[in-house]
Amino acid sequence: DTKLKIFSLNSNYPLAQEIAEQMGVELGKSSVKHFSDGEVQISIEESIRGCDVFIVQSTSAPVNEHLMELLIMIDAVKRASARTINVVMPYYGYARQDRKAKAREPITAKLVANLLETAGANRVIVLDLHAPQIQGFFDILIDHLQAVPILSTYFKSKNFNPDEVVIVSPDHGGVTRARKMAERLKAPIAIIDKRRPKPNVAEVMNIVGNIEGKICILIDDIIDTAGTITIGANALIEAGAKEVYACCSHPVLSGPAIERIENSVIKELVVTNTIQLTEEKMSPKVKQLSVATLMAEAISRVYENKSVSTLFD
Amino acid sequence: DTKLKIFSLNSNYPLAQEIAEQMGVELGKSSVKHFSDGEVQISIEESIRGCDVFIVQSTSAPVNEHLMELLIMIDAVKRASARTINVVMPYYGYARQDRKAKAREPITAKLVANLLETAGANRVIVLDLHAPQIQGFFDILIDHLQAVPILSTYFKSKNFNPDEVVIVSPDHGGVTRARKMAERLKAPIAIIDKRRPKPNVAEVMNIVGNIEGKICILIDDIIDTAGTITIGANALIEAGAKEVYACCSHPVLSGPAIERIENSVIKELVVTNTIQLTEEKMSPKVKQLSVATLMAEAISRVYENKSVSTLFD
Ligand SMILES: Nc1ncnc2c1ncn2[C@@H]1O[C@H](COP(=O)(O)O)[C@@H](O)[C@H]1O
Ligand SMILES: Nc1ncnc2c1ncn2[C@@H]1O[C@H](COP(=O)(O)O)[C@@H](O)[C@H]1O
Repeated sequence: DTKLKIFSLNSNYPLAQEIAEQMGVELGKSSVKHFSDGEVQISIEESIRGCDVFIVQSTSAPVNEHLMELLIMIDAVKRASARTINVVMPYYGYARQDRKAKAREPITAKLVANLLETAGANRVIVLDLHAPQIQGFFDILIDHLQAVPILSTYFKSKNFNPDEVVIVSPDHGGVTRARKMAERLKAPIAIIDKRRPKPNVAEVMNIVGNIEGKICILIDDIIDTAGTITIGANALIEAGAKEVYACCSHPVLSGPAIERIENSVIKELVVTNTIQLTEEKMSPKVKQLSVATLMAEAISRVYENKSVSTLFD
Repeated sequence: DTKLKIFSLNSNYPLAQEIAEQMGVELGKSSVKHFSDGEVQISIEESIRGCDVFIVQSTSAPVNEHLMELLIMIDAVKRASARTINVVMPYYGYARQDRKAKAREPITAKLVANLLETAGANRVIVLDLHAPQIQGFFDILIDHLQAVPILSTYFKSKNFNPDEVVIVSPDHGGVTRARKMAERLKAPIAIIDKRRPKPNVAEVMNIVGNIEGKICILIDDIIDTAGTITIGANALIEAGAKEVYACCSHPVLSGPAIERIENSVIKELVVTNTIQLTEEKMSPKVKQLSVATLMAEAISRVYENKSVSTLFD
């Protein structure tokens, strides 16, 4: 009979705390500090011998700091004789570096997978990877959760007139995601089709699908500098949309993101808490939904050796 | 017939530049920047197909940033079809976390070795590892250089009266290092022997060896917060030393280090440039010697498949 232990590192303590509460357990006792020179100093302050350990850490900014914390924690957990080491990464940093777009580039998303395995992870629980192919970067077990049900439920609660709603993908890459949400909301989809007529000429926004007079819900996996989403929202309004909402799983919101969103035609941006929002990333326009229940359920199922994929049936 | 390419990352560009100049080559063209969210963006801007690539990077502060830059660069170099990937790490960060001093601690120095191998390094060139045992953490080839000859040559050039000089180890762990310097300067050694008579009672400094009226040269591998070295220097003066110099390979110099050194009885602190000194770590008391010639020679020997260990004969 083994025991379940959940540890939080520094990237998203409130989410880890919420997960633990949902599961009716206390977070494991550990200390994650820095030596005077900035090196990470970790120690685990309770026995975990023979336990199934879950480490909650998003590799959000500062990504290198959070990733090294995680690798060092895995090493410490391994050397403390845990039975299994399960990494819960609500946000998987470096996911966009998942292929060589140009010659002589790294594939950092694959490197990160290798580093986690080398450190000693036995299993990884992630949510909405930038590309589902990243699952194949791992030789260990990986569970891939989705935020679409959570985002969809929120929009359902708004009780829009179903005939008025359109789910919009901001680019070709996101159509599958938009499709999933559209099924849940029983709404049609539209796609923003960007084309550059000639090199060095501004892109033209062409909207595929009927959005005139409609309530548009833009959906993406990551919103980073918010350029794509705010330009897309403008294009929708110009093409006659009634109003525009936006949503995403991972609110990276770097650089000018918040300013752009506040100055945009977007009525509300709905995100999850896979990434903790710092003070300066809060805005009255940003609504944050929790993935804690989803994560807690996934952890329970992994611990009890039940299917995680049926979570979405 | 392969070709030699040397690339520098961001931790110590001046040293890499100096090494390249000594070898009569140009540094390889690469770009190491950050995306808006802080993720490292690397691209190599010239062909390295079939080349023997040397990447110069110290994992000094910010250590996690510098380590991830290095791992991502190794991944990029590997995917660009280099023949061999040689990592030149003048300073090896996390070297002090080389054992479990307490239960449930990580052994981060070993983790770093594994990460470098996983990323794709074929060989590592380091200088004065905190513990020589760290060589055994690697399954790939490792060359271990020493700064003692460089430091010794500098003190020789001061033309002290040989009968007056004593080389002092600030603790038991450093005696071998002090011994090596003493041989080169044909001087005796002394050891500072710290003892805590009872728990929670201040340590007592006992000096083993004759230092009265002598010029003491304290030697350590790393000077970090400079506590040990400045307290040791005081103890030497109190015990009748004529003057105290200090030297080390790696000037980490974090937190109060510079202030402590400036306010101490230490006449001069001699360090190397394995770690680049930022503006606030410069002091008229700190003299920095270059390891570029040593590094350049080691790189040439590795490239030409000659013995590196004979460098110290
Ligand atoms: N952190 C990042 N921020 C912005 N762009 C990135 C980042 N990481 C990778 N990329 C780039 O984004 C591209 C992948 O984005 P996508 O086309 O949306 O899959 C890659 O070609 C990368 O060059
Ligand atoms: N970056 C660091 N700064 C200060 N102390 C450290 C650091 N890394 C490890 N240590 C501690 O230093 C001890 C090793 O130092 P030493 O006894 O000099 O080999 C270990 O027990 C660690 O707890």
